[in-house]
Amino acid sequence: MFNDSKFLQRLIVPAHTKIVLLILDGLGGLPLESGGKTELETAHTPHLDVLAGKSALGLTIPVGPGITPGSGPGHLSIFGYDPIEYEIGRGALEALGVDFELEPEDVAARGNFCSVDPAGVLTDRRAGRLPTEESRKLVNILRNIQIAGVEFFIEPVKEHRFAFVMRGLGLGDALSETDPQKTGVPPLPVQALKPEAKRTAKLANQFIAQAGKLLAGKHPANMILLRGFAKFPSLPTYAERFGLRSAAIAIHGMYRGVAKSVGMTVLKVDGDTIMDEFSVLEKNWNDFDFFYLHVKKTDTCGENGDFTGKVHAIEEVDALVPRLLALEPDVIIVTGDHSSPAVLKSHSWHPVPLLLYGKYVRADGLAEFGERACSRGSLGLIPAKDVMPIALANAQRITKYGA
Amino acid sequence: MFNDSKFLQRLIVPAHTKIVLLILDGLGGLPLESGGKTELETAHTPHLDVLAGKSALGLTIPVGPGITPGSGPGHLSIFGYDPIEYEIGRGALEALGVDFELEPEDVAARGNFCSVDPAGVLTDRRAGRLPTEESRKLVNILRNIQIAGVEFFIEPVKEHRFAFVMRGLGLGDALSETDPQKTGVPPLPVQALKPEAKRTAKLANQFIAQAGKLLAGKHPANMILLRGFAKFPSLPTYAERFGLRSAAIAIHGMYRGVAKSVGMTVLKVDGDTIMDEFSVLEKNWNDFDFFYLHVKKTDTCGENGDFTGKVHAIEEVDALVPRLLALEPDVIIVTGDHSSPAVLKSHSWHPVPLLLYGKYVRADGLAEFGERACSRGSLGLIPAKDVMPIALANAQRITKYGA
Repeated sequence: MFNDSKFLQRLIVPAHTKIVLLILDGLGGLPLESGGKTELETAHTPHLDVLAGKSALGLTIPVGPGITPGSGPGHLSIFGYDPIEYEIGRGALEALGVDFELEPEDVAARGNFCSVDPAGVLTDRRAGRLPTEESRKLVNILRNIQIAGVEFFIEPVKEHRFAFVMRGLGLGDALSETDPQKTGVPPLPVQALKPEAKRTAKLANQFIAQAGKLLAGKHPANMILLRGFAKFPSLPTYAERFGLRSAAIAIHGMYRGVAKSVGMTVLKVDGDTIMDEFSVLEKNWNDFDFFYLHVKKTDTCGENGDFTGKVHAIEEVDALVPRLLALEPDVIIVTGDHSSPAVLKSHSWHPVPLLLYGKYVRADGLAEFGERACSRGSLGLIPAKDVMPIALANAQRITKYGA
Repeated sequence: MFNDSKFLQRLIVPAHTKIVLLILDGLGGLPLESGGKTELETAHTPHLDVLAGKSALGLTIPVGPGITPGSGPGHLSIFGYDPIEYEIGRGALEALGVDFELEPEDVAARGNFCSVDPAGVLTDRRAGRLPTEESRKLVNILRNIQIAGVEFFIEPVKEHRFAFVMRGLGLGDALSETDPQKTGVPPLPVQALKPEAKRTAKLANQFIAQAGKLLAGKHPANMILLRGFAKFPSLPTYAERFGLRSAAIAIHGMYRGVAKSVGMTVLKVDGDTIMDEFSVLEKNWNDFDFFYLHVKKTDTCGENGDFTGKVHAIEEVDALVPRLLALEPDVIIVTGDHSSPAVLKSHSWHPVPLLLYGKYVRADGLAEFGERACSRGSLGLIPAKDVMPIALANAQRITKYGA
């Protein structure tokens, strides 16, 4: 009952308070050896520890018990949306990530340039990760493809990757991907997974056939793969749901995309360091009620199995905490979108450390930000989507229910 | 939303890992005096304590807050099924327990031989718990009863108990029981609780009337009582839901029955000790991915009000833990299906201690397996049905959700 977003929506009231959601991507970890310390517990975090002492701590479950979330569901959940009810396809995220304005009926996919041999057998699924500049030229070639009844948009992303969007009447996104996930076999044809996507599958296959002809002499990038076909999900915005003027500060396309999907204003970041992101926060402080600031490095190190790198990334954020505090936010949330333990070299199902700071927070007095401290915190073990209502309450943006 | 088992089902991936679910029936307890130690806290459990130190601890809620579960719901829940969505009737469990192959439309009930006086008034609801051999002879007499349009199956269970099954077209299981739960009154007639069970009620009453005639000279077992009318519930199997080749090691019919209802292979146990059950585990180790091992004695002692007996039963299991560890399971769950505090002499609503061990478990470092240690554990206070997804994740049998 409580999770009904309509219920919360009618209790939202305006206020002049500011909330900062600081996401250290893949924050939760595991010790290198049983009984040892996790990445977060290992990191020297004097500022976060002091903040923890004045905060309420807890652990979040992004999607459900035992479920390892991708970045999309992990973010939607901490943004306050049910990640199972609102499923965002990878294709839509890719297009969003390069600032492509998806229309509600567009069908998007992730595109890869790849290498095939003369018999059409896949020899490299990523075309040797060709340089982004090369990729841009090939994207321009693909833009020449024209098929009646549908419009195509191709946008370069990075290296071998591009966003692929089909626009037209009556398109469906229930389509299988062409990437066979291994080399030594030809790419698969796009297949309709539902009858209403049959025509779309045919159009996609026509596009791929023409792409093959146009790229014939361009080895290693002489073919394309398409996967993650998806329409833009219809999400209620932060303004509608929470009455917030919200801004996102993130460098990578995926996170900019998911923030855009909930209606956040995605701010431009000059540079690619965490410090650059904090500068954007400071510069835009007066213009928004809510800031989502995304730190990627913790997850990258986790996925690379780089325990020490992840520790350092956390310490890098810790050193910037005084700049955040200097802005005097009313509510601060420090957490992750999921766990990415270095020992697993991947996202994982483990609950995610959560810190909630604010004037009216019932502080636990646990002056340490770590998995075990958080497991003793008063926020308990909660669905990540419940964090936003608690933050909004602490920002005095939810009125009383009932008389 | 998360509880939709279909959601989990599509994320299941194969692996070569093994999971052991060790159930100490009625494990949760209470101290003899307020402030004292529970049965589990009193027990000397050096092996479980060391294991606890390397594990994540928590407490499970089998059905819901304040709800005391029967063995059926308690087991279904820890097996990963919603015990309210999937309700197994006692009659179906009784038939399953004696390895009777229930058909989907069969209606089963628990049967008791009982004693009535010449006026038909109940004088002993269990016919002096007559010996199983006597009961077998009487069951053969009941097998002579024939009524047009329905087939009856009567299977001896133990002492005064037998399984009763009706097979035919259009039978309903919405039937009241005949046991008035007290002596000094006659048995009740079977009544249809829904219109579609009217004919079935009539047939059952005809059977009972004929049974009364055939047993007339057989005092103390000169009548029968029928209760817990139920059809076999339609449960998705462990293979379907979790992709597991699962085996059950249990001595008592009820537990063998509930394991069979979720598609586990129920292994033969030679002997009736806990040690015999561990031998079966060792002998079958290579043939399954998942083992459910059931220990009855903890519950029996709890229900008998035997605090010390329950303590000893726990210690008996603890002594066998090294044999379990020697098999090197990837994931071990030690818990109960419900609580059975000796001071209550019955099942109870109290949350149940939970220990989850595995290579990728975030260990709490709480080197004690007991109710209070578990209440400080990082798994938190969770529905018992959420334990299987977490165990599957730790066994690396669930893939990532979303990109």
